[in-house]
Amino acid sequence: MGKIAVLHGINLQLLGRREPAVYGRTTLAEIDARLRQMGEAAGVEVYCRQTNYEGEFVEWIAELGTEDFLILNPGAWTHTQHSIYDAIKGTGTPAIEVHLSNIHAREAFRAQSVVAGACAGQICGLGEDSYYLAMNYALKRVRPEQKDGRM
Amino acid sequence: MGKIAVLHGINLQLLGRREPAVYGRTTLAEIDARLRQMGEAAGVEVYCRQTNYEGEFVEWIAELGTEDFLILNPGAWTHTQHSIYDAIKGTGTPAIEVHLSNIHAREAFRAQSVVAGACAGQICGLGEDSYYLAMNYALKRVRPEQKDGRM
Amino acid sequence: MGKIAVLHGINLQLLGRREPAVYGRTTLAEIDARLRQMGEAAGVEVYCRQTNYEGEFVEWIAELGTEDFLILNPGAWTHTQHSIYDAIKGTGTPAIEVHLSNIHAREAFRAQSVVAGACAGQICGLGEDSYYLAMNYALKRVRPEQKDGRM
Amino acid sequence: MGKIAVLHGINLQLLGRREPAVYGRTTLAEIDARLRQMGEAAGVEVYCRQTNYEGEFVEWIAELGTEDFLILNPGAWTHTQHSIYDAIKGTGTPAIEVHLSNIHAREAFRAQSVVAGACAGQICGLGEDSYYLAMNYALKRVRPEQKDGRM
Amino acid sequence: MGKIAVLHGINLQLLGRREPAVYGRTTLAEIDARLRQMGEAAGVEVYCRQTNYEGEFVEWIAELGTEDFLILNPGAWTHTQHSIYDAIKGTGTPAIEVHLSNIHAREAFRAQSVVAGACAGQICGLGEDSYYLAMNYALKRVRPEQKDGRM
Amino acid sequence: MGKIAVLHGINLQLLGRREPAVYGRTTLAEIDARLRQMGEAAGVEVYCRQTNYEGEFVEWIAELGTEDFLILNPGAWTHTQHSIYDAIKGTGTPAIEVHLSNIHAREAFRAQSVVAGACAGQICGLGEDSYYLAMNYALKRVRPEQKDGRM
Amino acid sequence: MGKIAVLHGINLQLLGRREPAVYGRTTLAEIDARLRQMGEAAGVEVYCRQTNYEGEFVEWIAELGTEDFLILNPGAWTHTQHSIYDAIKGTGTPAIEVHLSNIHAREAFRAQSVVAGACAGQICGLGEDSYYLAMNYALKRVRPEQKDGRM
Amino acid sequence: MGKIAVLHGINLQLLGRREPAVYGRTTLAEIDARLRQMGEAAGVEVYCRQTNYEGEFVEWIAELGTEDFLILNPGAWTHTQHSIYDAIKGTGTPAIEVHLSNIHAREAFRAQSVVAGACAGQICGLGEDSYYLAMNYALKRVRPEQKDGRM
Amino acid sequence: MGKIAVLHGINLQLLGRREPAVYGRTTLAEIDARLRQMGEAAGVEVYCRQTNYEGEFVEWIAELGTEDFLILNPGAWTHTQHSIYDAIKGTGTPAIEVHLSNIHAREAFRAQSVVAGACAGQICGLGEDSYYLAMNYALKRVRPEQKDGRM
Amino acid sequence: MGKIAVLHGINLQLLGRREPAVYGRTTLAEIDARLRQMGEAAGVEVYCRQTNYEGEFVEWIAELGTEDFLILNPGAWTHTQHSIYDAIKGTGTPAIEVHLSNIHAREAFRAQSVVAGACAGQICGLGEDSYYLAMNYALKRVRPEQKDGRM
Amino acid sequence: MGKIAVLHGINLQLLGRREPAVYGRTTLAEIDARLRQMGEAAGVEVYCRQTNYEGEFVEWIAELGTEDFLILNPGAWTHTQHSIYDAIKGTGTPAIEVHLSNIHAREAFRAQSVVAGACAGQICGLGEDSYYLAMNYALKRVRPEQKDGRM
Amino acid sequence: MGKIAVLHGINLQLLGRREPAVYGRTTLAEIDARLRQMGEAAGVEVYCRQTNYEGEFVEWIAELGTEDFLILNPGAWTHTQHSIYDAIKGTGTPAIEVHLSNIHAREAFRAQSVVAGACAGQICGLGEDSYYLAMNYALKRVRPEQKDGRM
Repeated sequence: MGKIAVLHGINLQLLGRREPAVYGRTTLAEIDARLRQMGEAAGVEVYCRQTNYEGEFVEWIAELGTEDFLILNPGAWTHTQHSIYDAIKGTGTPAIEVHLSNIHAREAFRAQSVVAGACAGQICGLGEDSYYLAMNYALKRVRPEQKDGRM
Repeated sequence: MGKIAVLHGINLQLLGRREPAVYGRTTLAEIDARLRQMGEAAGVEVYCRQTNYEGEFVEWIAELGTEDFLILNPGAWTHTQHSIYDAIKGTGTPAIEVHLSNIHAREAFRAQSVVAGACAGQICGLGEDSYYLAMNYALKRVRPEQKDGRM
Repeated sequence: MGKIAVLHGINLQLLGRREPAVYGRTTLAEIDARLRQMGEAAGVEVYCRQTNYEGEFVEWIAELGTEDFLILNPGAWTHTQHSIYDAIKGTGTPAIEVHLSNIHAREAFRAQSVVAGACAGQICGLGEDSYYLAMNYALKRVRPEQKDGRM
Repeated sequence: MGKIAVLHGINLQLLGRREPAVYGRTTLAEIDARLRQMGEAAGVEVYCRQTNYEGEFVEWIAELGTEDFLILNPGAWTHTQHSIYDAIKGTGTPAIEVHLSNIHAREAFRAQSVVAGACAGQICGLGEDSYYLAMNYALKRVRPEQKDGRM
Repeated sequence: MGKIAVLHGINLQLLGRREPAVYGRTTLAEIDARLRQMGEAAGVEVYCRQTNYEGEFVEWIAELGTEDFLILNPGAWTHTQHSIYDAIKGTGTPAIEVHLSNIHAREAFRAQSVVAGACAGQICGLGEDSYYLAMNYALKRVRPEQKDGRM
Repeated sequence: MGKIAVLHGINLQLLGRREPAVYGRTTLAEIDARLRQMGEAAGVEVYCRQTNYEGEFVEWIAELGTEDFLILNPGAWTHTQHSIYDAIKGTGTPAIEVHLSNIHAREAFRAQSVVAGACAGQICGLGEDSYYLAMNYALKRVRPEQKDGRM
Repeated sequence: MGKIAVLHGINLQLLGRREPAVYGRTTLAEIDARLRQMGEAAGVEVYCRQTNYEGEFVEWIAELGTEDFLILNPGAWTHTQHSIYDAIKGTGTPAIEVHLSNIHAREAFRAQSVVAGACAGQICGLGEDSYYLAMNYALKRVRPEQKDGRM
Repeated sequence: MGKIAVLHGINLQLLGRREPAVYGRTTLAEIDARLRQMGEAAGVEVYCRQTNYEGEFVEWIAELGTEDFLILNPGAWTHTQHSIYDAIKGTGTPAIEVHLSNIHAREAFRAQSVVAGACAGQICGLGEDSYYLAMNYALKRVRPEQKDGRM
Repeated sequence: MGKIAVLHGINLQLLGRREPAVYGRTTLAEIDARLRQMGEAAGVEVYCRQTNYEGEFVEWIAELGTEDFLILNPGAWTHTQHSIYDAIKGTGTPAIEVHLSNIHAREAFRAQSVVAGACAGQICGLGEDSYYLAMNYALKRVRPEQKDGRM
Repeated sequence: MGKIAVLHGINLQLLGRREPAVYGRTTLAEIDARLRQMGEAAGVEVYCRQTNYEGEFVEWIAELGTEDFLILNPGAWTHTQHSIYDAIKGTGTPAIEVHLSNIHAREAFRAQSVVAGACAGQICGLGEDSYYLAMNYALKRVRPEQKDGRM
Repeated sequence: MGKIAVLHGINLQLLGRREPAVYGRTTLAEIDARLRQMGEAAGVEVYCRQTNYEGEFVEWIAELGTEDFLILNPGAWTHTQHSIYDAIKGTGTPAIEVHLSNIHAREAFRAQSVVAGACAGQICGLGEDSYYLAMNYALKRVRPEQKDGRM
Repeated sequence: MGKIAVLHGINLQLLGRREPAVYGRTTLAEIDARLRQMGEAAGVEVYCRQTNYEGEFVEWIAELGTEDFLILNPGAWTHTQHSIYDAIKGTGTPAIEVHLSNIHAREAFRAQSVVAGACAGQICGLGEDSYYLAMNYALKRVRPEQKDGRM
């Protein structure tokens, strides 16, 4: 049975409660519930965590061991914290970077991701669906035999 | 019944035949077949086109009318041709930008998309799955009542 | 009898049909009709063409021969395609660059024209009148003896 | 009856007397005479002023009240003095920026206008005709019913 | 009765103990005491907190609820941590950015604040008085009827 | 008895009359009245002047002699005119830079102050209160024995 | 028997007819004749094509199969069109970039080639001889046994 | 008897376990043991700490008191976190910056250290020996009378 | 008999009274006296003027007629006011740019002169002697027959 | 009889002995022998020199007199030493810049040649053949009547 | 028995005689004596050379053969002369870059080393000890069996 | 009796022989003769040297001892060789930088002097007179009692 880690970074506990025009009305708990349920349906363990502490975030990445996949949304750290890039590089787990909003179509500082270089790909701008699509992809990689039924 | 346009830009006819290490071994025809089949399964019309002519590409976008969604991969035009940005802006059809490779993790010139500002979101780096995830998302938008069964 | 060429570039076939708040409601056909009529009134032949193909656009410029003046709006090519600069330089026909919107007061990428260096002048921001003023100027140059009556 | 202000900025008193190869041989007084005469013909009051003092220039703009249109050539202030941008923004009068030479085709520092963002449009590179075309446009806006006869 | 939050960021616990030539000799505890006393005198609750953990800092901002005003000095985070910008944007509480030294007159990296865009204003360079002036302003906003007596 | 100079730069005579959404509805005369009254109350002479002429502005600074403090708002000169920096440097009078709007949260060109390097501090974004807070600070410096009663 | 492709890009049909001071008086047809004749003499098939359409240009590159060498002059596309870089990368055929004028000694925008990274080398500034030297080199690579007699 | 602090920053707990090709196979515990043993041999107290929390890191620096020397490796914080620069500046303890890899010979973002300005020197690229050389230097400074025997 | 104009720009009336460590103790009046005396000795008319008004400064330049040489120190305008460049270009009088301090060895903004392009040469860093050397040079040009005796 | 100078700059004595993967296995002596032999065959004197001293290199260029052509490879000086540009400008001898590797396809610093502006053209990336092609070209220029036989 | 080369570049002959506040009072001869003595003690041949000629410097590097290690301080060449980078790359000898002062904490131009990319590591800011630490490291590499006794 | 050194850098031996339109027709020998004669007349020893070797140039500067003044023209080294800056800084002799042409009014690369920061002042653009004015200034400093008679 596979395992997938979903890590949410700084300020993401605010989802659904602040700036709904930009980030939607679904809470992080609701997103996590849905992601876990997608995992369950595919027979894959999914766990989700959020922190506002960069130290905790990179430690979670560093401690990855039996996980087959990492889905992460580093929030505003995306644009400056090279430590996350280093942490992902240090682990062998394949990773997808996820953003709720289209970071390439907002303020200039958001267009650059210093994390991207350590990830397989990036999904952004599709609201909570950014997470679900990433999960779809990860599940397919972890359970390739179920590929046709899922995507 | 909904309709979704998939537009492939410059050099994408090469898919599966050139640089498989970077772009994979699936041909564009195979990807298109799969995308159409996903549409069919959801009762949505999907058509796919490829061109190496910027003029033809922006005309296809300009002629969008009854389509509910646009999935586009502008290839190397992504980084310089503002005409595509203008064309998407000019149409009311929501769009997703798709790239096979992670454009944010390669040469510096690929990290910038002049097209992103006119799109809802971007999916990149997941090979042919970048297209399928985008189609998943589009179908869900076009046929929201089928949402649970699909994603 | 003089001759004036009016060349419209990429996406300009959309005029009057898309984004009227930015570009107005007059169609390109209506603008062309008016320009030809201005020429007629002054006894000067005026012809107008539009293309979304850079190749066709530079060929039209390259083929200029008996024309006395060139009025051109390269659309989004203005900011990147040096080929148009080269083509104008290659011909001896004096040229005016025209833009419907004020390119110096919008997104940063629009503020630079790589075409300007090959033109006598630039008129922008006055909507369709940008064209008519350019035509006024060109007619005056082609038919200077009629100058007082026109401007 | 309408009213149009024409404001000339720094060094423009030199017109016709210095560097005729670049700026032509017509004096500012001659240009002003012509502009006033165009106004008269259209039944619109036109007044013209020149100053080399930025303070006086922005005060003239600030004092605009019953004028329907502003035509301004800020000279070398165009490239650095944000005060003019602010002054135009502060008034509700629509403005056109005018330059005798093609500022986009000379030294690099001239290619940027910090004033453009506050203007409707820009006409440059057509010598004294830059002014006359701007006046044509302004008159048409002030006296739209006379449009056909003029342009 | 109103409420005002004062949040001090990284390294500010050092105030009064390190580099007095740059930051003065007053300790953070003394500044906080004075700020609370100003609040008391105006019948407004004032509380002050300091942390060296970005995670804790953005959580304090995220948890703002009944506060009427936020006064914050993010220390060196000012120049790089977009998370603080996002956190302030996410809350509806008006904020003032405060710095002891004149950040616009020191090393180049200090001249840029990535936080400023989310704040109403900025006070810097006046030592501990930067805080007291900000408090003056906040109290006036919270208790406008007492305005004359205070400022 | 102390003396404080308040110098307003270019376009500031427009206050309260133009763009109230950005700059508020209070006129410069009203602000000056209030500032003088604050001085009177503290037994300190306060005088206020405005000019749109950079030459007059730097001369006022150069002529500072018995003044104990300078409060200045250079308007749009803030971003380009090094002469003001030089003039303040040349006088021994301590200075505070004041702006009505938050210059660090508007167009990019406003984020840089070439004057800041010669000033003790900067207050911006608090509307007319930016001036009053600066006056508070200056009065406290000039009449330190009255400190408790004022701030 | 070997085969060498010579591809000329945008505006190169103008050779010999426009701006002879910069580009010489020899026409493209004459250059092509000479290149074919050099091939013939060496027992190598040489074919030459010109297009002003980027789409056609990259398709010609994409369709390279039995050719042993590619000599290309992309004209003004050299400086912006990454599609050509991608197309060459996608083919296994070794390529030489050729320019008539010394692109490193003209306007700044010409000094950068976005195509160079995909080519073995570059020859520029020697007029039509740039082509002949490239052909010399290619023939030598295709027919190494004839090396001494040719170079 | 002297005292030397060795502070390791973000991700350094991974040493010896991740990316051995870049960072070697020695663990942080082994390095620390060796450093303490070097101190012991010289009669100097050496303690070592690692954290992934910037807040804890700057607090350790801020709390330096009786230490004679600081050896620090801030990891990826080196390139962005000015707080560490400020913390070192705030303490009087001389510091050496240490990196395992040659930060000047890797990705561009690693070439800049925002911490260097507060340190006496920098040693990088020599793997774990970077630490031992720094310790050699520090011991010599703390126990100069033993200089000859050690270096 | 020849004539030489010496024009001093913004803030230069402060010479000798402010910041003597940077600019020396000689007043502008003393410098002017010396310059006039040098002219007298050579039988050349020398006049000197100072203004803090850019408008007046460019008008003085524009009005140059019978003068054989212009010596100018634009002060802080040197770095931003292109109007002075334009004014000098507009007159045929050869000019030398003079600065008391070495503008290439101070703050970065002083290293660039937008005026230099219109002058024959520049002398800086030699205090008041910068003026005298410029006068020496100008006199030699105006009265070449006296060359040996003077230099 | 003509004369051609071949000047090799810094580090080129290493050719064939160091980094053969990048620069090939042919020694400089072998290249020089071949070049001289090409000259001999054409009845043109060819001499070759190498130095690691910029001073000697520019002196050789400065001393050019009866030479008809200069072929030079400045090595790493290409990217920074403007003295070589000046030296070539100072002589009337036409020059070709030669590089063994494709300087436009390696590290960024190699893409710029400060020497190119003084040369007729540039040949790079073709290994030792870069020299032979340059010699072919030079011989053709020196002995045009032998043109057909050679190229 | 091993061999280590120590190469000092431009201006380093001045050590101990000029600017002792920056570079210390020890002469280069004294440093060299110490370095040779360190080698002797370890049974390794150490030789030291200094030159102000870039040509001689790169030749010394090029001639490295039996040396096991290179310690080099290129002085001011560090920031611009790519030839040294090339020369080190061309030899197989591992190298350490040494600087007396902390080049990352002085003028901006010193922060970049174009040589670093060819070296194993860099030691800077520790005065003459920078050399001794580098020698310690090199000796350990050359004589690993003596490691414990030395470091 | 005083002593003044005049040092000419790279390519200056060409003076009077190459590019007279830019650099004049006077040879370096003639300039040196004149400079020595000026010294003689003032009872000051003047010696002049030229070299194309940076190593020799900085050694001459390093060996300055009894000289009272240094006049130097580093030629093209001015823009890149920091070694000259360091060498001048290392000596206590005051220096003036001299250029024949106006380096601030030519190609962009010439506008920056990396040497200026170590010199008292700079004289440029006045042809050979640049030297004579510098000598005038130096003599005045060395023999202040003769000041009136000379300047």
